Amino acid sequence: MSPSDRPVVTFLSDFGLDGAAAICRGVILAICPGAQIVDIAHTVPKYAIADGAFILASALPWMPMGVHLTVVDPGVGTSRRPIAVRVARGDILVGPDNGLLIDGVDALGGVGEVRELANKALWGPARSSTFHGRDLFAPVAARLAAKPATFDDLGPVLPAADLVRLSPRTAAFRDGWLETEVIYVDSFGNLRLAGNASDLVQLGDSEKGPIPLDVELSAGSLGEPRVIESSLVATFGEVAEGASLLYLDSSGHPALADSQGNAAARLAVRTGVRVRMRRR
Amino acid sequence: MSPSDRPVVTFLSDFGLDGAAAICRGVILAICPGAQIVDIAHTVPKYAIADGAFILASALPWMPMGVHLTVVDPGVGTSRRPIAVRVARGDILVGPDNGLLIDGVDALGGVGEVRELANKALWGPARSSTFHGRDLFAPVAARLAAKPATFDDLGPVLPAADLVRLSPRTAAFRDGWLETEVIYVDSFGNLRLAGNASDLVQLGDSEKGPIPLDVELSAGSLGEPRVIESSLVATFGEVAEGASLLYLDSSGHPALADSQGNAAARLAVRTGVRVRMRRR
Amino acid sequence: MSPSDRPVVTFLSDFGLDGAAAICRGVILAICPGAQIVDIAHTVPKYAIADGAFILASALPWMPMGVHLTVVDPGVGTSRRPIAVRVARGDILVGPDNGLLIDGVDALGGVGEVRELANKALWGPARSSTFHGRDLFAPVAARLAAKPATFDDLGPVLPAADLVRLSPRTAAFRDGWLETEVIYVDSFGNLRLAGNASDLVQLGDSEKGPIPLDVELSAGSLGEPRVIESSLVATFGEVAEGASLLYLDSSGHPALADSQGNAAARLAVRTGVRVRMRRR
Repeated sequence: MSPSDRPVVTFLSDFGLDGAAAICRGVILAICPGAQIVDIAHTVPKYAIADGAFILASALPWMPMGVHLTVVDPGVGTSRRPIAVRVARGDILVGPDNGLLIDGVDALGGVGEVRELANKALWGPARSSTFHGRDLFAPVAARLAAKPATFDDLGPVLPAADLVRLSPRTAAFRDGWLETEVIYVDSFGNLRLAGNASDLVQLGDSEKGPIPLDVELSAGSLGEPRVIESSLVATFGEVAEGASLLYLDSSGHPALADSQGNAAARLAVRTGVRVRMRRR
Repeated sequence: MSPSDRPVVTFLSDFGLDGAAAICRGVILAICPGAQIVDIAHTVPKYAIADGAFILASALPWMPMGVHLTVVDPGVGTSRRPIAVRVARGDILVGPDNGLLIDGVDALGGVGEVRELANKALWGPARSSTFHGRDLFAPVAARLAAKPATFDDLGPVLPAADLVRLSPRTAAFRDGWLETEVIYVDSFGNLRLAGNASDLVQLGDSEKGPIPLDVELSAGSLGEPRVIESSLVATFGEVAEGASLLYLDSSGHPALADSQGNAAARLAVRTGVRVRMRRR
Repeated sequence: MSPSDRPVVTFLSDFGLDGAAAICRGVILAICPGAQIVDIAHTVPKYAIADGAFILASALPWMPMGVHLTVVDPGVGTSRRPIAVRVARGDILVGPDNGLLIDGVDALGGVGEVRELANKALWGPARSSTFHGRDLFAPVAARLAAKPATFDDLGPVLPAADLVRLSPRTAAFRDGWLETEVIYVDSFGNLRLAGNASDLVQLGDSEKGPIPLDVELSAGSLGEPRVIESSLVATFGEVAEGASLLYLDSSGHPALADSQGNAAARLAVRTGVRVRMRRR
């Protein structure tokens, strides 16, 4: 079977599990019957663009080359632009211009070219103001996958610099503290933190054994900052069941977890909480 | 690849996500290895035939032509009949005769012919009294998709008039009020209401700008009727974040929502709550 | 289309719905573009090996022959071994050696041969200590499905007797009581019990009509044992809506349920609760 018989269309949304994502799958398969649809996630918290962006950027490097349909779209029915972005690897990302897909673009090597989805001949037959996943994004993605449409057919080129971007979230090392924030809480309750491996080594070399840490959590809703004890480790197996640990997660970010537990539930922490850590 | 190599089997149930729907997928693929299975929803509230019927009818018009397997079946193991319905478009719906699939049949153009699934040679090898999805409906759906079985093989014709139907839920305009009820609460917490576009225009022409409304919600469990302020609008963008709005949803029903919020949670409203609305 | 063009890869994990299982699906399709992936379940409670084992063993007999990827892996990053097991039917199960996949192996006819996944040439390019689903198990499963790898390539043979096994959970009939325990709570809230049809007949022949029962539930967390009334029946339809019933479930275990209700929620019962039952 040649790859072109089974073009990959990945799909991420906040549509939930009660039929809206299925409608988009139906729309895709009606236009491109051979599509290999890979659902990345549909339980992104409603309207949570940053959460969707995190999941997308974590997943895309592991997906086969294809068309990537992304719909977390609180601005549906307003003037926010529908766009497609072609990246170096050859993939095309399709979705709203609200910051959702830029981290995924970067994870695939950065912007090649951006087009506004202005060519309504490629949209679907219905034109609701509330369900552009069904009426606009899925039909365009399917036509790109089926290749009756090419990227150049989509509409006018947009300058990449004009795209809406989320505010960057990074880590910094200051006065012995690694300062960062929770950028995603995964389904295990692990706290994924802004930053990367080079930030984490500032705290020490965990390959030589666990490094004891103080971790301070603060957010307006949490009241006074709280301090917990944790350990920077190379693997989960280095701490006792239930103990807190800091590690480099599989997507390349620092992460704070409870071994075989749910740190987010225990600590009542969510996205946006500020975290600073130092050797104890 | 010809379409017949990848026959579409859509699948809706209240089986949840812990394996029962997967067992049916396995049964289908064992009989019809090329089946393109499209899961519509498996998180239909348990035994909630009307919720399943709403999701099914919203989704089917967007699905490719195929066999549609539907199992929300509180009467499994009783004398309720297993049926298949062929519709004008050529699709075949398979499921229990309890009202679940009739709205979907109507959404695809209405009944062509009904058959009772009496031919046990088309069922699976196991005969539990509790899992007809696995033992009866999925095997029949798969054999129809694989085309070793035709519609006429299934069993005797049943009169369409004999099928179990849910009580119809409609809207009415009386004394300046549009009277309706909540027929589905979607995963965004939007309240889908009985009625359609022609009911909604009785309140005014929202294309000319938002129309202020009083909305009265009443149900035994809610105590006294409550009145909230809302606006009839053409798009979500016409009201502030968090504000209530009434609009024509993407499935053609009136819907009451909070912009970027969860109206069902805020108002503690569920399916069956009565709603009346008038211009303020 | 020949079956070898669409090799079946089933997939069970506790990864949840927020992207980790999708990453593994992407890894599989990048290596084996024609794979027919059948998701068995990804909402297995976190780290709950016994729950995963129950779902897997219930599902596998209904799956087409293929490669079965199973990842509930609280010991990821420790010395627990990654293994593959070939069974009589020809299927290969891939996962951690922690008891997760043995019941599934037995459900497919028992162990043929076991290999340790020691051949790192078959693993993926990344080597995290926390996501062996992505980096080890999915790549190996995909290579077995695509057949650039054979079972013998995986690594050294392990004695089947060395595999980690869960403690067996069985039923016993003593002094007129059938003594058992809750081994799984399904999404309907039905309590699946240790034992099988031959245990259940000790209570009587339900084909002749409902048999009244006393059911005693006990667990440390429940305080004093509680006794409820139930009936051994052949089908759900024999008791009134809401009433308790005992029946032989579709996977061959005794099960205690509330007709059209949620017994687990009503009785606050979970896996591990001890249950004894006798004729009233």
